[in-house]
Amino acid sequence: MTSQITIAVDAMGGDNSPLKIIDGIELHSNESQDVFYKIYGDMEIIKSILNKKNIKKNRYELIHTKEKVLGEDSALSAAKKGKNTSMWLAIESVKTKESDAVISAGNTGALFVIAKLNLEMINNIDKPALSGLWPNKNGLNVVLDLGANIECNEKNLIDFCIMGSALHKALFPDESVKVALLNIGSEEIKGNNVIKNTYQELNSKKNKFYDFYGYIEGNQIMDGDVNVIVTDGFTGNVALKTAEGTANFISTELKKALTSSIIGKISSLANIKNLNKFKQKLDPRIYNGAILLGLNTPVIKSHGSTDYIGFYNSLKVCEKTIKGRLIEKIKENIN
Amino acid sequence: MTSQITIAVDAMGGDNSPLKIIDGIELHSNESQDVFYKIYGDMEIIKSILNKKNIKKNRYELIHTKEKVLGEDSALSAAKKGKNTSMWLAIESVKTKESDAVISAGNTGALFVIAKLNLEMINNIDKPALSGLWPNKNGLNVVLDLGANIECNEKNLIDFCIMGSALHKALFPDESVKVALLNIGSEEIKGNNVIKNTYQELNSKKNKFYDFYGYIEGNQIMDGDVNVIVTDGFTGNVALKTAEGTANFISTELKKALTSSIIGKISSLANIKNLNKFKQKLDPRIYNGAILLGLNTPVIKSHGSTDYIGFYNSLKVCEKTIKGRLIEKIKENIN
Repeated sequence: MTSQITIAVDAMGGDNSPLKIIDGIELHSNESQDVFYKIYGDMEIIKSILNKKNIKKNRYELIHTKEKVLGEDSALSAAKKGKNTSMWLAIESVKTKESDAVISAGNTGALFVIAKLNLEMINNIDKPALSGLWPNKNGLNVVLDLGANIECNEKNLIDFCIMGSALHKALFPDESVKVALLNIGSEEIKGNNVIKNTYQELNSKKNKFYDFYGYIEGNQIMDGDVNVIVTDGFTGNVALKTAEGTANFISTELKKALTSSIIGKISSLANIKNLNKFKQKLDPRIYNGAILLGLNTPVIKSHGSTDYIGFYNSLKVCEKTIKGRLIEKIKENIN
Repeated sequence: MTSQITIAVDAMGGDNSPLKIIDGIELHSNESQDVFYKIYGDMEIIKSILNKKNIKKNRYELIHTKEKVLGEDSALSAAKKGKNTSMWLAIESVKTKESDAVISAGNTGALFVIAKLNLEMINNIDKPALSGLWPNKNGLNVVLDLGANIECNEKNLIDFCIMGSALHKALFPDESVKVALLNIGSEEIKGNNVIKNTYQELNSKKNKFYDFYGYIEGNQIMDGDVNVIVTDGFTGNVALKTAEGTANFISTELKKALTSSIIGKISSLANIKNLNKFKQKLDPRIYNGAILLGLNTPVIKSHGSTDYIGFYNSLKVCEKTIKGRLIEKIKENIN
């Protein structure tokens, strides 16, 4: 890592791109002076946006791409579009070491497949995993896998512990890392054979990188007793989306309740500052930025539907994975 | 079903039992005049409680049991206690057809095992499933399996559709039943082979008991587009508990936010009626009552930590499964 780090940005993925991408870069570039952006996308559109923004010319390079991966593309058809898309070229830029990490708000499946086609796996890691940030009482959890691998064996889950703990340390260097396996009970006899075997193996191998806490259940994810939660991609995806759905349901009901009468409206208005604080704490844009772990370079996926604030937050994740030496940390954890 | 139905009640399971059980029966018996209760438990304690309650003597029978299943008993050791426990005898009472359904707020694993030891499975159902009620925008979902079967094959999941739709119809006879499979994407190609095969089979078999909606993801559980959601017991348990944890986290944060200043406290007080409505809508006691499906008799599990209001609600579920001819409906759905 030189004092200046380079992020390759696919500017064409997700809703309202490239506008929100450039807005996110503007916000991030004003905060982080040592980051350089290689921006891949339609030069004409991006230039017209950049003209109105406050980003110094020496902070970025614009690389024109004719094509882009669409949200509705299958992963395979996106990969078949080949080198002409902004996503492919941004990924190629980390392959050739021109950039230190790559970020996209585009098609997740396509990003996954094109990254795997272009980038090498870290030695001794069998499968890449999608990890994300999830709030808990004390801060943020790293949770993986969120959907990359529907079925996982013991080795995969142990790899996820190694990679997840390295990611947490890279993002939050001051916190000690506590890893748990997501299960349907806290007793050793609960769960399927893969989980039970993984538990045994993790329990017998003490290491200096993280503490193994044991099992947690779904209702403990946000308790803050652990900060890295490992599960297979099917369970992780269902858990994440169920939490999202529950949060949405409650917010809607709360909004209805608080504004269902004149008195309600007025007293909510009086309480607006506190309610805004509450909203901020649960704002999903703060947690934006899923990290594809297992490849030799950080690959960051911003939510497609987030806005520029969300994209800015995933740029921060990107920066932290580089400065926090994520890949080196994973390699150290393996050995 | 005669005009009078009989519920066998294990009075000794769960926190604050038998007090909350008797309080729940009092509330329920005043509302439902045609229900008779066979109450199993420590006669002396129960009698001293009953003396202070307003339940007519001809509405119940007290059956003394010396022993009870403890929360910390393993399912096996609970079963080994044999016929002397209130749980065993309550279950035996439906086996001998003295009662129409059995309810307990005690040890779930023990209830599951003792019920399976004593009661016959419905013909052509391979595995019993634990189903629960889960709020959605329009009312209540039936979700199953919530933890009885860690691994499920295609036949099991199809059985769950049959049983879950019969349960929904028994509880909410006026609603049309829409069944979905919980998956990690809505496209046909998503998910593991078991889910994909189940999808194909359900899609090819139209029937008059329910509509098959297809896949839903975790964030759609509460949308109200479907009302029966089928998944394996591992995924269902994680989803349910993750939703519980998320709801708790948000409630705690909301409470903190609304009372974090004097103005906040006052305006929340002004809004107390609306906030109470909100609280009521999310009150887990309303959804209390998991149903063990697949056995020849309704077996209802109340949450151990609920209070008498929660237990009363699970008595209502119990009553509805009998009056709604749950078991007959399942048998009709199979044929």
